[in-house]
Amino acid sequence: MNGLLTDLYELTMAAGYFEAGKSAEIATFEFGIRRLPPNRNYVLAAGLPQAVDYLLNLGFAGEEIDYLRGLPQFARAPGKFFEYLRGFRFTGDLFAVPEGTPLFAGEPLLTVRAPIIEAQVPETYLLSAVSFQTLVASKAARVVAAAGGRPVIEFGSRRAHTPEAGVLGARAAYLGGCTSTSNILAGFRFSIPVAGTAGHSWVMSFTCEDAAFRKLQSALGEHAVQLLDTYDIAGAARRVAALGAPLAGVRIDSGDFLSNARQVRAILDEAGLGAARIMVSGDLDEYRIRELLAAGAPIDSFGVGTQIAVSADAPSLSGVYKLVELEIGGIKRYTAKYSDDKSTIPGAKQIFRDVARDVVARSGECGRGEALLRPVILGGRLIEPLPSLEEARTRARESVARLAPALRQLETTDPWPAIYSRELRALAEQTRLNLLGTAPVA
Amino acid sequence: MNGLLTDLYELTMAAGYFEAGKSAEIATFEFGIRRLPPNRNYVLAAGLPQAVDYLLNLGFAGEEIDYLRGLPQFARAPGKFFEYLRGFRFTGDLFAVPEGTPLFAGEPLLTVRAPIIEAQVPETYLLSAVSFQTLVASKAARVVAAAGGRPVIEFGSRRAHTPEAGVLGARAAYLGGCTSTSNILAGFRFSIPVAGTAGHSWVMSFTCEDAAFRKLQSALGEHAVQLLDTYDIAGAARRVAALGAPLAGVRIDSGDFLSNARQVRAILDEAGLGAARIMVSGDLDEYRIRELLAAGAPIDSFGVGTQIAVSADAPSLSGVYKLVELEIGGIKRYTAKYSDDKSTIPGAKQIFRDVARDVVARSGECGRGEALLRPVILGGRLIEPLPSLEEARTRARESVARLAPALRQLETTDPWPAIYSRELRALAEQTRLNLLGTAPVA
Repeated sequence: MNGLLTDLYELTMAAGYFEAGKSAEIATFEFGIRRLPPNRNYVLAAGLPQAVDYLLNLGFAGEEIDYLRGLPQFARAPGKFFEYLRGFRFTGDLFAVPEGTPLFAGEPLLTVRAPIIEAQVPETYLLSAVSFQTLVASKAARVVAAAGGRPVIEFGSRRAHTPEAGVLGARAAYLGGCTSTSNILAGFRFSIPVAGTAGHSWVMSFTCEDAAFRKLQSALGEHAVQLLDTYDIAGAARRVAALGAPLAGVRIDSGDFLSNARQVRAILDEAGLGAARIMVSGDLDEYRIRELLAAGAPIDSFGVGTQIAVSADAPSLSGVYKLVELEIGGIKRYTAKYSDDKSTIPGAKQIFRDVARDVVARSGECGRGEALLRPVILGGRLIEPLPSLEEARTRARESVARLAPALRQLETTDPWPAIYSRELRALAEQTRLNLLGTAPVA
Repeated sequence: MNGLLTDLYELTMAAGYFEAGKSAEIATFEFGIRRLPPNRNYVLAAGLPQAVDYLLNLGFAGEEIDYLRGLPQFARAPGKFFEYLRGFRFTGDLFAVPEGTPLFAGEPLLTVRAPIIEAQVPETYLLSAVSFQTLVASKAARVVAAAGGRPVIEFGSRRAHTPEAGVLGARAAYLGGCTSTSNILAGFRFSIPVAGTAGHSWVMSFTCEDAAFRKLQSALGEHAVQLLDTYDIAGAARRVAALGAPLAGVRIDSGDFLSNARQVRAILDEAGLGAARIMVSGDLDEYRIRELLAAGAPIDSFGVGTQIAVSADAPSLSGVYKLVELEIGGIKRYTAKYSDDKSTIPGAKQIFRDVARDVVARSGECGRGEALLRPVILGGRLIEPLPSLEEARTRARESVARLAPALRQLETTDPWPAIYSRELRALAEQTRLNLLGTAPVA
């Protein structure tokens, strides 16, 4: 039911809204990206199906409600509030940018419009689920770009923050352009291609290394990828070469990849195994991959774990979920906060992506270009099936390819222009005057 | 059943072991920490109950096995292997360092001893589940140390890598010394104290800020913590002061915490609200907290999110799960790998913690001090209930307090001596001679 998968204050606020007679007020909350993570020129939206599943199944089990009743923070909450929770479900609307869409600082990723309690409770889950996949997809896209067309296999489940994060991270990495994952459950659940080689334990479990290679060859045939660095890479390469085909390739998991790959390539080629591919893995990121390829390393594919699985250089996204408007009985009120460095822009929004810029406008404005925020759930119901993971992956690939070349580089560059429309700026000025009684800041 | 919650190669190796007639060989795998994460003088072991639950429930559902059968990597696997998977369960032994124990580089955290397939398959899950909680507990301990006795509330669920990571991260943060969490499901599942204040949306949802403060006061009474930085901190503090008691305190979520806390403290004190506490939150880590307290900021508690939830400065642990010995029919064989910078030490081990040092010895050796690796599962059964989370938290607090003072500082220092016993070194030398035919490296 997932109702408790949130922060306490969402539910104490819910009780407060209930008591204050606000349950019928329709709130619009916006999940926006305050700033891009370090080293990123864009992020790739991801995680929408998990957000949708959550909203469609949100509710409270009896024992969860009993637990809440026993907390001191709910001692003053009226019995009717707990009755309300018993029947709680999400009846509102979700607008979202499709998975695989590049986004920039200041842009909303999702908008939730619902009676205020239904819109407040999902904050924690939505931020977590969507931010995580967005981070991983964005990191994967960088690694894939650095690999310049060579396959990148996502290997990071063992480093993911919980096994479940391994599965969803594999999904996001595939969306961001990885060709496959080592995570079998991700393959089973999301039909992602799975790949793998063998571990050092395989080699160590045989008394002689060539017996390990021979057995792997007989078990996997043309899928066999032999792991070379258990004892001595060159010796292992010669033993693999002596066995001949069938052989998909070899993996090197340590040492100097450039010199090792060259030496192994020569050994394999000499044995007539020119078709056998060389994969490397171990502490790889986009910069190291670029460096290896620039040096001409004869590497055919990359296994990348930690760096993708936890988006190691940028493990968090500064996503915010902010109330932007309220409506009751036809009266609309726009809201914003003005905290230092954390102020927000009022009103429900739309993003229009044109050839030269994005315009963040008021929702309902006429704009030029593609409108990125689209209705997904209306009145608590999914309006149509979401795009498949393959479609999202294609969207990611095609949209990234259309970005200005500088944005696709690994180095950060001038941001893509994402400006506010005149109407949105006017609304922000008016709201500031209403709330603070002062003129707007620039 | 969780059988697919692993990397593909664990299962292709499993099929290979099966075909190679190795299923009866008893393997010992060791989960060790290759090196400490950056900025850490120790890590706190955490996540053991999740590892145990996994092992006790490990198995394969029919549809999972059907999925495997359809993968090209299993095209050559014999039908009997899939029959074997159908009846698969973990029948082996688990030895583990109790949760809340500080550990150092080179020390094993867990040892799994089981028929080789049963010991191989859990690698991915164990590494992920235990590394994640270990990272979060270790980070939390640093933040808690910096706060010098002031409560630290874990707020990070929205930044955690999936909502499930938020729940388990809250558990680990509490183990590491946080006083409470905002994550209600963690409170419900693990009986962790939950805490929270109110969000900006609460304040924004009222047309006037003082109405928001008044309503929160009436809803929460002496639990009310008013959020001051929606519009103007000093003005909000005056409005809260005008309302008077009951009031638990206030929270400041942005701006210059030092000057803001001083100003707010003066306003509250002048209104006779000397007992009202000041909490700050927003981009805090152990260094920022230390700095604020050193400057004499009148701050009573800290809400810490991102930095704890994703262990932001060290989001991954270099944990390895390595085969260290094999046994069949009374014949033991010791295994190690010799990859560059990633070599391993053969043989099942024990850690003896003495007053001045740790000795990593062969299991079965007589040693001085506390033996840290203890049997948890024997023959597939939990031998006794695990220590409770409260007990683990107490162990963490007491063990950290006993560490040399330099290790408890935020800065990294000379490592705690963790040396290998003479017998273990002799075994390592012998194994190296056997496997590589060369003399050992130092």
